[in-house]
Amino acid sequence: GDHQETVPVEGVAGGGTAYGWSDTGVNDPRPLRGAIDPTKVSSLELLNVWCMPNSANVGPQDMPRELEPISLLAARNERESIQIAIRPKVSWGGSGIAGTVQVQCTDLCSPCGARLVVGQSLTLRRVVPVLGVPDALVPLDMPVCQLNLFPGETTVIWISVDVPSEQTPGHYEGEIIISSTKSEAESTSQSLTKVEKHQLYRELRDCLDVVEPLEGRPSEEVVERVKSATSSLRRVLLSPSLADFFSDNGPIDMMEEDAVSSLSIRLKISLTVWDFVLPVTPSVPAVIGISDTVIEDRFGVEHGTNEWFELLDQHFKWLLQYRISPYFCRWGNGMRVLTYTSPWPADHPKSDEYFSDPRLAAYAVPNGPIVPCGDTAKDYLRREVEILRTKNHWKKAYFYLWDEPLNIEQYNGIRSMASEIHAYAPDARILTTYYCGPSDAPLASNNFEAFLKVPEFLRPHTQIYCTSEWVIGNREDLAKDIIAEIQTENGEEWWTYVCLGPGDPHPNWHLGMRGTQHRAVMWRVWKEGGTGFLYWGANCYEKATVPSAEIKFRRGLPPGDGVLFYPGQVFSSSQQPVASLRLERLLSGLQDIEYLKLYASRFGRDESLNLLEKTGMYQGPERYTSEHTPIDIMRGEVYRTCRS
Amino acid sequence: GDHQETVPVEGVAGGGTAYGWSDTGVNDPRPLRGAIDPTKVSSLELLNVWCMPNSANVGPQDMPRELEPISLLAARNERESIQIAIRPKVSWGGSGIAGTVQVQCTDLCSPCGARLVVGQSLTLRRVVPVLGVPDALVPLDMPVCQLNLFPGETTVIWISVDVPSEQTPGHYEGEIIISSTKSEAESTSQSLTKVEKHQLYRELRDCLDVVEPLEGRPSEEVVERVKSATSSLRRVLLSPSLADFFSDNGPIDMMEEDAVSSLSIRLKISLTVWDFVLPVTPSVPAVIGISDTVIEDRFGVEHGTNEWFELLDQHFKWLLQYRISPYFCRWGNGMRVLTYTSPWPADHPKSDEYFSDPRLAAYAVPNGPIVPCGDTAKDYLRREVEILRTKNHWKKAYFYLWDEPLNIEQYNGIRSMASEIHAYAPDARILTTYYCGPSDAPLASNNFEAFLKVPEFLRPHTQIYCTSEWVIGNREDLAKDIIAEIQTENGEEWWTYVCLGPGDPHPNWHLGMRGTQHRAVMWRVWKEGGTGFLYWGANCYEKATVPSAEIKFRRGLPPGDGVLFYPGQVFSSSQQPVASLRLERLLSGLQDIEYLKLYASRFGRDESLNLLEKTGMYQGPERYTSEHTPIDIMRGEVYRTCRS
Repeated sequence: GDHQETVPVEGVAGGGTAYGWSDTGVNDPRPLRGAIDPTKVSSLELLNVWCMPNSANVGPQDMPRELEPISLLAARNERESIQIAIRPKVSWGGSGIAGTVQVQCTDLCSPCGARLVVGQSLTLRRVVPVLGVPDALVPLDMPVCQLNLFPGETTVIWISVDVPSEQTPGHYEGEIIISSTKSEAESTSQSLTKVEKHQLYRELRDCLDVVEPLEGRPSEEVVERVKSATSSLRRVLLSPSLADFFSDNGPIDMMEEDAVSSLSIRLKISLTVWDFVLPVTPSVPAVIGISDTVIEDRFGVEHGTNEWFELLDQHFKWLLQYRISPYFCRWGNGMRVLTYTSPWPADHPKSDEYFSDPRLAAYAVPNGPIVPCGDTAKDYLRREVEILRTKNHWKKAYFYLWDEPLNIEQYNGIRSMASEIHAYAPDARILTTYYCGPSDAPLASNNFEAFLKVPEFLRPHTQIYCTSEWVIGNREDLAKDIIAEIQTENGEEWWTYVCLGPGDPHPNWHLGMRGTQHRAVMWRVWKEGGTGFLYWGANCYEKATVPSAEIKFRRGLPPGDGVLFYPGQVFSSSQQPVASLRLERLLSGLQDIEYLKLYASRFGRDESLNLLEKTGMYQGPERYTSEHTPIDIMRGEVYRTCRS
Repeated sequence: GDHQETVPVEGVAGGGTAYGWSDTGVNDPRPLRGAIDPTKVSSLELLNVWCMPNSANVGPQDMPRELEPISLLAARNERESIQIAIRPKVSWGGSGIAGTVQVQCTDLCSPCGARLVVGQSLTLRRVVPVLGVPDALVPLDMPVCQLNLFPGETTVIWISVDVPSEQTPGHYEGEIIISSTKSEAESTSQSLTKVEKHQLYRELRDCLDVVEPLEGRPSEEVVERVKSATSSLRRVLLSPSLADFFSDNGPIDMMEEDAVSSLSIRLKISLTVWDFVLPVTPSVPAVIGISDTVIEDRFGVEHGTNEWFELLDQHFKWLLQYRISPYFCRWGNGMRVLTYTSPWPADHPKSDEYFSDPRLAAYAVPNGPIVPCGDTAKDYLRREVEILRTKNHWKKAYFYLWDEPLNIEQYNGIRSMASEIHAYAPDARILTTYYCGPSDAPLASNNFEAFLKVPEFLRPHTQIYCTSEWVIGNREDLAKDIIAEIQTENGEEWWTYVCLGPGDPHPNWHLGMRGTQHRAVMWRVWKEGGTGFLYWGANCYEKATVPSAEIKFRRGLPPGDGVLFYPGQVFSSSQQPVASLRLERLLSGLQDIEYLKLYASRFGRDESLNLLEKTGMYQGPERYTSEHTPIDIMRGEVYRTCRS
């Protein structure tokens, strides 16, 4: 009858299902009790911190992993990124938040004294979910910022290193220092509010009024006034607002302001910069549309005004950082598009500045005026072409007139516009996007054959045949059939595009796809052998008339389709656009192409495809890595075999 | 050739897929431009606000609906809740947040002057996601609080009205007032930091030092000193810290401190309190386990110490608010459990206080000492029983000795312990949970038949046959077979329980299930005719040794299983437990039973089942409403037919 004398212990003997399975939490022999002072305990007691590659989608629900040292490889003129995830083990922050951390970043330094400077070459952004999926990269203050962590939520920081073209190759090291700290609310509770400040101001002013006009006054009055002022001043100094300092004669303890200490988590970043310089002009032009209509509506600027030109200029310059070639566009009847890389006429100095920029790989020339002017469209077009064809940058020019023609009438529209352009410049490049032949005049007995015959049907009215990757599906071999129809010897090119198709599991830039799936869009271009790429929209949100209006994706499109960045105003008071993870992966993919091209230049294109295959990085639109490692292996192999 | 002269308009002519489909955003003729002052524009321009019933799971991704007026019905001694969802239309808050709103709540008043007071009868909590699913209800300051909203995220407030038993029936009205406001960071950016304050302090003290010992000094020196002090004072007043006020002579504009204005969103709450008083003692006892081991580990208290008793007391009292009857428990070998509602011996005044509390419907008596004392388990048990059986509350007592016996040895264990208890008190009620007969001595040829035979097999060693709802599956008719085996005429009872089973779509309290699925656990009890309910754990998180440690669910269990509340420390500096939505729905379900019981008392039990059926609220474990409306119809019908 005394079988209950030992108090049973939960979890030890099978009871209390699976209790105590993960004893990986806080294992301090003196466990944290009561109110936690985040500046007095090791940050490792309060935080899980771990690193993730840039191709990972790390969301609020992601669970901690081992913290491993960061070791990066980058060429010159390359951006390489890594993510740091932080998840609170405990809460110490008070109301609503788990706690606040301070994140600080040092320069990356080489033993010879070369530097990659924080805020310039090294930038930190916070990964913010969109529709619950990590996507927006909101800039953080540098070199120090504070972040609020939430209970049971993982917060992610995106760290990018931009290596300048002239950077000294070598090994660089730096640190990210993460320190648990008191929340802002807690530390500002010691501050003076506006009301307290105003009261202080008035008391001091009254003091001054009492003593100010003293010269020439009888000395008794002076003494009385000074006495009165003195006692007011003493009262002020003893007021609750300032009383903390009354007994404090020493210098203020600035340590409290500087949370970094031996208790901080120090994360070493090690970076190898190698001597390869990514070409300033991307080897494969990626032309990306920016809807001017969206800019006009959201920012409330009228077409053609000064503000409008300024906003377009801001967008152009910001996107150019991503190795892409922006074009502005607006849609017309039946998918006619007006596309233009420069909003200014060809003879405007800004157009020359845009088109000569070595980072721009291709530019769209409008086939009529962007801003209504006296000219007819015909006259305008002729003058534009006459000016541009004399320029060195004319080889970058293309005309994109129609988006996905579907019937004979639309194909004829392209023919007629192209004829006009070719009359002024026989070497002008017309770009046409398509995924099928004309529906009302089948070019062949089946859809794919009809699609293949489009070049023959459109020639010579198109030079850049830009086809949807969706048509190819998982039959990569069809790419060869498409290329066979392109007369590259006559300057014709095959480009591709993605938009609402292809869908999962094929590479595309939809929200919710895997990171490698985003990056593989460009791997696919390299493997299939296209010489350019088009994407219809970087800012094609649903209509809004306020810059900071919530981002909504367009009805009927997969989330993220047509959206590669967000207006900064949505996430902060900054005017700067906010990149998506998908835009970063587009950039990474374009950089991968430069690695593969370098490798191909040494060992031949076939070997570059072999490298893609043997690393397991990309074998086809349904067979590519979901892990990051093969990417690093590919890059490491190019580095190993191609460095001088 | 001039077909491009009209600038095409995106979205109007089929281009730019689906642009402008939702023009429901901000439609102000003077759209918001530049920096938005949230105190100068109508909050409706900045916010979507809408209401949702308490049975909805409203998460960060939920999209706005029409704002409809709130109209609630509640009995006396009932809690009724509603949710308010807020989603920013635009961002105005600066760094990281979309903006801050102030939420203010008025008392609910009746025309005759009766009141339901904010902070007492009316409480506001924020719905916080756990594993991404809305679940934790974190208390908000009352009557005014500030909430940060995030871009593209819906924030949800849970409003509960607790109607006191003595409340005057009638119609009550009140308001929730939601006002966009400046973020705290913004308003504190005008404050003085500690460093600035300290500098100010020192300058003023220096001033004072200069003028303080003036009496008896030569008047030239006095004048010089006063001049010096005056110019210091003037410098202080012109310093950046105070310079804002220099030209500001009027009283400070206090309106800025009070965000409520004609621009606020005012949400009317209308509540009908009817004359029915929910019985203080719940009609169906719901006994819920609290792991003492978890409390000991997480809060770092040793078994049997004063702090331990205090913590258990806090848990008991807090849970008692939810119409449930808590019991503490720890697991032993082979699912032997030590269960006890009072941690004190039977002769301790606290035990009497616990057991006599009219809100407690049932209490567990341990079959041995909780805290080791001089007695053997046998002696201890005998004395406890001898004391308790003389009390009025003895009818609430039960002994829960073993969790889910699986074989003859375990069944025999129960028999032996039960015999001992019955030797001291023949009328003692032994509760046994089970879902099958002994595996090593089949009671029948199939599992379900063997399960049915358990009462016959265990009799007289068990009085409360507590079976898993999982056994019944969707075959509700089996409940009749179970009941047929129970000798209710001899005081035997049939209770049920849920734990890791049954799973979706059956009613249970797992995280991620629908709100009506949580609430339907109790509807099912009513329909099947059980007279009590058991749940194994309210605080069975994974092991942690810090009160504010992140909540982890136990490995192998569905998320939320065994967890009905969270330690307050995880979400704020409060010590009070934080309820889950699922605990609120358990309470709602228990309240629904009182409505159904009232209805049955007038029209018979069959009519109450008919009411469940005809409203579409609950017909079976796979056929119950996913919408809230049938619940309101049922309640409204009981109100209409049963009010006096």
